[in-house]
Amino acid sequence: MTVLILTAKDDVTADLVITRLHEAEVPVLRLDPADLPVGILLSAHYTHGDFEGLLSANGHVVSMGGLRSVWVRRPGEPAAHADEPSAWLTAETRQALFGMLYSASARWMNHPRDAERARLKPWQLRTAHLSGFAVPPTVITTFPRLARQFAEEYGEVVVKSASGPPPGEPPMTLPTTLIGPDSDFSGVAAGPTLLQRYVPKHADIRLTCVGSRLFAARKKAEPDQVDGRYGDTEHTWEPVPVPGRIRKSVHDYVERAGLAYAAFDLAEDEVGFWWFLECNQGGQFGFVELDTGQPISEAVARWLARPGPA
Amino acid sequence: MTVLILTAKDDVTADLVITRLHEAEVPVLRLDPADLPVGILLSAHYTHGDFEGLLSANGHVVSMGGLRSVWVRRPGEPAAHADEPSAWLTAETRQALFGMLYSASARWMNHPRDAERARLKPWQLRTAHLSGFAVPPTVITTFPRLARQFAEEYGEVVVKSASGPPPGEPPMTLPTTLIGPDSDFSGVAAGPTLLQRYVPKHADIRLTCVGSRLFAARKKAEPDQVDGRYGDTEHTWEPVPVPGRIRKSVHDYVERAGLAYAAFDLAEDEVGFWWFLECNQGGQFGFVELDTGQPISEAVARWLARPGPA
Repeated sequence: MTVLILTAKDDVTADLVITRLHEAEVPVLRLDPADLPVGILLSAHYTHGDFEGLLSANGHVVSMGGLRSVWVRRPGEPAAHADEPSAWLTAETRQALFGMLYSASARWMNHPRDAERARLKPWQLRTAHLSGFAVPPTVITTFPRLARQFAEEYGEVVVKSASGPPPGEPPMTLPTTLIGPDSDFSGVAAGPTLLQRYVPKHADIRLTCVGSRLFAARKKAEPDQVDGRYGDTEHTWEPVPVPGRIRKSVHDYVERAGLAYAAFDLAEDEVGFWWFLECNQGGQFGFVELDTGQPISEAVARWLARPGPA
Repeated sequence: MTVLILTAKDDVTADLVITRLHEAEVPVLRLDPADLPVGILLSAHYTHGDFEGLLSANGHVVSMGGLRSVWVRRPGEPAAHADEPSAWLTAETRQALFGMLYSASARWMNHPRDAERARLKPWQLRTAHLSGFAVPPTVITTFPRLARQFAEEYGEVVVKSASGPPPGEPPMTLPTTLIGPDSDFSGVAAGPTLLQRYVPKHADIRLTCVGSRLFAARKKAEPDQVDGRYGDTEHTWEPVPVPGRIRKSVHDYVERAGLAYAAFDLAEDEVGFWWFLECNQGGQFGFVELDTGQPISEAVARWLARPGPA
């Protein structure tokens, strides 16, 4: 039973996990969908009321019946490296590859359907609420008056982007910007804007969930540092125990979301309370493992290697 | 309780359904995501452990709690009509709109997650198999030798595209092309190719499923006509009863796929047997309703208007 890893060529995080799988003598097929169809055999047969699928690359062959799990790491666009790439070839190749993989009964980390939904920030907030996390009050609006009302109610708020930072050099805004109620909110009408009550932070918490295993790490915040993901500090990530309430919420969240892997960003406030900021279904874990020594890549490898159904 | 219809400005099929909903005095909000945020109020609040969302356009307001159902008809790209459109604005607007709608508990026709999976042709074939449909033997391959073997085994086969016809004028291939085992299969290596055993057709069957209601229509095929969707014929669509075995398969298929609406294309062979060709989760129904008088738009309106959970 083979583990299929969909990722681009240069991916040290995948390398870490593949090393663990090799140590455990688990067969691995590493594949970048961008490399299809050059040198890659893909064949799916729907005959006699049955289904058979084959995928072969770098001298390794895997049948869909022999597929243990699929890790969607950082795959390229299907057929992006083809001799004559086109949007149509990409669409056809996506159909062939993912249509075949969806027909198999392998376990996914994470299934693209669940990953897609889990990327929606407003859905994350709602799901976090329902899972019992403390979520800072948040509004997403196209209405300047409602944005101002929110800032007046909560005093200092941060403005964030939902999909990721806007492109452009120099950047139009910092990824997370602290603003007050006296700001000019007229720009809110130009596009939906996410405002969140500012949580004065003592520390950033990165909580990585792999199957049912949790790894929490804590990094002391610099005074006045709004977003711990950006900028260097003197501090490093240190392992920290997971409070029982948080453990319960994480398990509830990933079950609602259908995720086998999730990286939670939480904020620890002045009294040590942890607030939900976001959950990245494809978040990096290498930097945490490096600082803390937590065996996250091993946990990923074990989850992928585990026999049995989803 | 309001029905939300996501579609572009010119959509006579939506007009048909909206007329039915107006007759039944069901509140309707029609919205094209492309028009966001100009003149449209969107506001989602995640506060005090609760969630409230508002959407307002053309003088109509709907709260997420008052949302009965969502019909995803032919929506434009979010924010495509904005004053300064950009990929980032589209991503942010998609986050805000769909993140908010996913947080509501409305029924969907069809939910984008299910629609996305249901578009994968290989997944359709597998699901049709599992649902008890007769599916013509099919192969999807990047390997010329396997394509030739398939053609040799089945004699005449059709080559189809999985994602839709390739662009270009004149078109590179017909949408569905009949080929024999003597064809040149070397091009298969350039991209995954779908080959299917040719079903000599007496008639095309279009079977429209709305919730649990089925509408089957039959159109006699022209001799030598490979794909009934293209080209005019003397024949029109006529209502036809649904065989019990097919009824069971359709219900099984839409349950597996999570679809409230689906348009099945089937082929009736020389002995009157129906073969599964494909299932389009967003297939048109206006032309069938026009020819047959089957009340499909009324069925859609009733499904959308129905109170109660998903």
